[in-house]
Amino acid sequence: MPKISGRERFFMKFEEYKSVKELQEHAKNPPDLTSPGFLNEARVRNMAISFSKWRLLYGTERVDEKICKSLSNLALEAKVYEKMTRLQNMEVMNYVNNCESEQRRVGHTAIRNLEKDAKTTDAAREAKEDYQTELRKLRDFLQGAQKFKSMIIVGIGGSYLGTEAVYHALKSEQTNDKKLYFASNVDPDKVNGILNEVDPKTTLVAIVSKSGGTLEIKAQEELLRKTYATLKLLPKDHFVLVTGKGSPMDDPSLFLEVFYMWDYIGGRFSVSSMVGAVPLAFIFGMDVWEEFLKGLHEMDKHALTEKDPLKNLPLFAALLGIWNRNFLKMETLAIIPYAQSMNYWSAHLQQLFMESNGKSVQQEDGSFVKHETSPVIWGTVGTEGQHAYHQCIHQGTDVIPVEFIGFATPQREGDMVIEGSTNQEKLIANLFAQAIALAKGDKNKNLNKNFSGNRPSRILLALTLDAYTLGSLLAYHEHYVAFQGFVWGINSFDQEGVQLGKVLANSMIDLFKYQREKGCLPKDPESSLNRAFIEELALTQGGLLKNEKKLA
Amino acid sequence: MPKISGRERFFMKFEEYKSVKELQEHAKNPPDLTSPGFLNEARVRNMAISFSKWRLLYGTERVDEKICKSLSNLALEAKVYEKMTRLQNMEVMNYVNNCESEQRRVGHTAIRNLEKDAKTTDAAREAKEDYQTELRKLRDFLQGAQKFKSMIIVGIGGSYLGTEAVYHALKSEQTNDKKLYFASNVDPDKVNGILNEVDPKTTLVAIVSKSGGTLEIKAQEELLRKTYATLKLLPKDHFVLVTGKGSPMDDPSLFLEVFYMWDYIGGRFSVSSMVGAVPLAFIFGMDVWEEFLKGLHEMDKHALTEKDPLKNLPLFAALLGIWNRNFLKMETLAIIPYAQSMNYWSAHLQQLFMESNGKSVQQEDGSFVKHETSPVIWGTVGTEGQHAYHQCIHQGTDVIPVEFIGFATPQREGDMVIEGSTNQEKLIANLFAQAIALAKGDKNKNLNKNFSGNRPSRILLALTLDAYTLGSLLAYHEHYVAFQGFVWGINSFDQEGVQLGKVLANSMIDLFKYQREKGCLPKDPESSLNRAFIEELALTQGGLLKNEKKLA
Repeated sequence: MPKISGRERFFMKFEEYKSVKELQEHAKNPPDLTSPGFLNEARVRNMAISFSKWRLLYGTERVDEKICKSLSNLALEAKVYEKMTRLQNMEVMNYVNNCESEQRRVGHTAIRNLEKDAKTTDAAREAKEDYQTELRKLRDFLQGAQKFKSMIIVGIGGSYLGTEAVYHALKSEQTNDKKLYFASNVDPDKVNGILNEVDPKTTLVAIVSKSGGTLEIKAQEELLRKTYATLKLLPKDHFVLVTGKGSPMDDPSLFLEVFYMWDYIGGRFSVSSMVGAVPLAFIFGMDVWEEFLKGLHEMDKHALTEKDPLKNLPLFAALLGIWNRNFLKMETLAIIPYAQSMNYWSAHLQQLFMESNGKSVQQEDGSFVKHETSPVIWGTVGTEGQHAYHQCIHQGTDVIPVEFIGFATPQREGDMVIEGSTNQEKLIANLFAQAIALAKGDKNKNLNKNFSGNRPSRILLALTLDAYTLGSLLAYHEHYVAFQGFVWGINSFDQEGVQLGKVLANSMIDLFKYQREKGCLPKDPESSLNRAFIEELALTQGGLLKNEKKLA
Repeated sequence: MPKISGRERFFMKFEEYKSVKELQEHAKNPPDLTSPGFLNEARVRNMAISFSKWRLLYGTERVDEKICKSLSNLALEAKVYEKMTRLQNMEVMNYVNNCESEQRRVGHTAIRNLEKDAKTTDAAREAKEDYQTELRKLRDFLQGAQKFKSMIIVGIGGSYLGTEAVYHALKSEQTNDKKLYFASNVDPDKVNGILNEVDPKTTLVAIVSKSGGTLEIKAQEELLRKTYATLKLLPKDHFVLVTGKGSPMDDPSLFLEVFYMWDYIGGRFSVSSMVGAVPLAFIFGMDVWEEFLKGLHEMDKHALTEKDPLKNLPLFAALLGIWNRNFLKMETLAIIPYAQSMNYWSAHLQQLFMESNGKSVQQEDGSFVKHETSPVIWGTVGTEGQHAYHQCIHQGTDVIPVEFIGFATPQREGDMVIEGSTNQEKLIANLFAQAIALAKGDKNKNLNKNFSGNRPSRILLALTLDAYTLGSLLAYHEHYVAFQGFVWGINSFDQEGVQLGKVLANSMIDLFKYQREKGCLPKDPESSLNRAFIEELALTQGGLLKNEKKLA
């Protein structure tokens, strides 16, 4: 096991970096994209990075050579490559010094390192071998599970958001008519709605919970087990489990099969683990799954080995994000894929970005940071957004930077040339037009039709949206987040900020239980409740406030 | 026709209002929700507005009595009731003075005024009568269209976002197995994916385009007409149209039926017009549709007639939003419904809020505003967000205000008491717990587990999510937006900010056409394209930059 040491040499605060001071200077007079001649063909052509299937065009960001140089220096001052090496070597990277913290390794890159003779550490090799064992188990399981036509995923947050995003994005690669359903919420309407659509006899239920203790999951599992029992079906013949080895749920006698993950896989980084593998290989088959893993690994390797920050795709994009966030003071980032099948991508990215980097504490000494961390991440697919919120992006009072994602070819057959262009070409034309309109603007004496311009964006382009390309895009965003965390000096791998809400919710659930026992709540959950109940809820909130001591 | 006059008496700039100066003073030392004893049961109980099915709890906002008083004064200074009266009377409210502008009436409230003897203006009465005519046409049409099992909506932005949100929210009220599909995008993969799922013989195609000239819609319509023709089905037997009377698409000979709207219905306010009526009455029946309209009208009437701003639900919520946005300087607003079926609501709200109020020009004199307008609107359903981005809401470096929406009872049967509480109670317990956790925080010496608190939110509660309640919620958000626009002094009813992108996109589509004619692009849109094509696209972007003069 590698020795955990030498952390102190990484410790320098963001505001102390020389490059941060340079960037603050540059930010006093940043490039103006509307200056005559500034945004020209040569700029657009030269400000680009190509890697594998991808091309990043950043001529429409508010940067110039000297800013890029300072951003590159910032990456080096923050020792991002050393940190990425430690991450990929599975040293303990999930920690906050001077605080009780998780003290865990981070292993999502290690498990998907498919290279036979990868030079890596014992911990990383072990993680990979454990994962390979699970994948073999999955292959065998799927062979024997061919009678199943549907799968209901019972999971929440990281246990399903990434899976859902990938499922929709790759639907065109599906060669059977199996269906995937997501019962992600404690809301009883969701799972009851799904039960109206599937035939339970040919349905697998996959319970996905790393901790094995999530309230929502336990409630949904119990509801489903009761439903199966009512239908005289044995839950054990239908339920599979994905959980942390040894979690409270880890009882193989209750499941058709149990698949494992380990504590070095964080929920939001778990798509490539068994969390994504079980449902996605069920739908797409193991071959597509392996293509996806290859795409992920390719980007992992690039993130680690491309030592020029200006040529490292996720690192450089992360630096552009830092420029907009910390120096140009933009509070949000819209990520807009021009591909209908990516309509679940932004929900995954919201979690990946905001849960990883929505932090306020310096990793190396447990003190508060003095700079901004994660922006609000949002967006829907283009061109839909153009007919919705783009008004605000073009003419609102705040600048909203954008990452556009586009593909040269459609995923499905059936596109046609109409009036000289295909629909895919019309789609991509809109993407480019948005970036240029935001950057250049358009002066008009009628201020209502005036476009101030100088609003930054970047464009990520690939040839086609397939499993391999999507894998590399997923890893691109994972590393974008990790690199920003490295530069900001925060721990991107814990989520202490979700705990207080859980504690208070459990306390209120206890109040419901207490009130039910006392006969203050209707026994029948479906009885017609009246207005008084809402008042009661408000008071219960009050009650919760009174119970403060109990919570402590 | 009512005389358009007296506008000048409304003209005072936001920063000139006396109440704005008061609020700026209050904002120097706003209430701290974490002060000992501040957030107590009495506060939570007293800071509430009840109207019809709804209760708004705002004890967890950073306001006190004097701030509420100043906000109320702001509403009066900005003459919001006069403006709301003009809106509901269908005077011309879509205008910007000193600028060429749309100069239109705004009629979404007038059409749903179902009261027999409503005291209203000629314009409003006429609009309502025209709408009633269309509704009667729809009732007859649906009688004769019972063989159809599915409907594909071809629309974009306001032509489908609201419909999609309502469709999912009310699915539990559906008593048949009809299906609705949304082909909203120019992306060819979307419509080809739908065609794999439906039987075209029993499918209606509803083309929804107010202007009758939207690129995306025309492209999708043509693709679908060709597909139907290939299947030897007459498009005229399957296609219906919802469009502006007299639009370029308004050719009844091409459609099974044509339903009309008028230019006084803006896209994002069109759910209650035929845009929503045709698909939603197809799925839910006319009775549910009328319940929905009643809910809308009830809130319209409340917005207009409740003259105390502190008791007017949409107005007071709008004022709380203005306090957070313009005085506490918060750039975003998360809207988080704790109801799985509302998972499409935020996409509708993004359009409604950001397209309406993402503006920079003073309506009364066409000059730039000096204050912030629309925040970025985002959110997904609870509890999902708790396992995703709530980390950032609790511990991020920026404060993100939240509007929580919850319901006391579930929509579907099947909820059960597990360990003393129902799933619905667990859901609502989580909602309250989030609001309290955000407000109160939790001090901890371990800063990584510290919750700074003092993060504002409000809670909207109703008994149950049905057609009537959803109608009133939709109108609540519409009036929230309108009232904010009134206070900010902007025109919430146009969308000039989407034009430049359209012009540039069309110019680039022309370039594609030109290149195809010259043989520079592959004729077969599905041929395997190569890397060079991406380079080509980048250059085309360059080409677009070169063609500036052509665009002017």
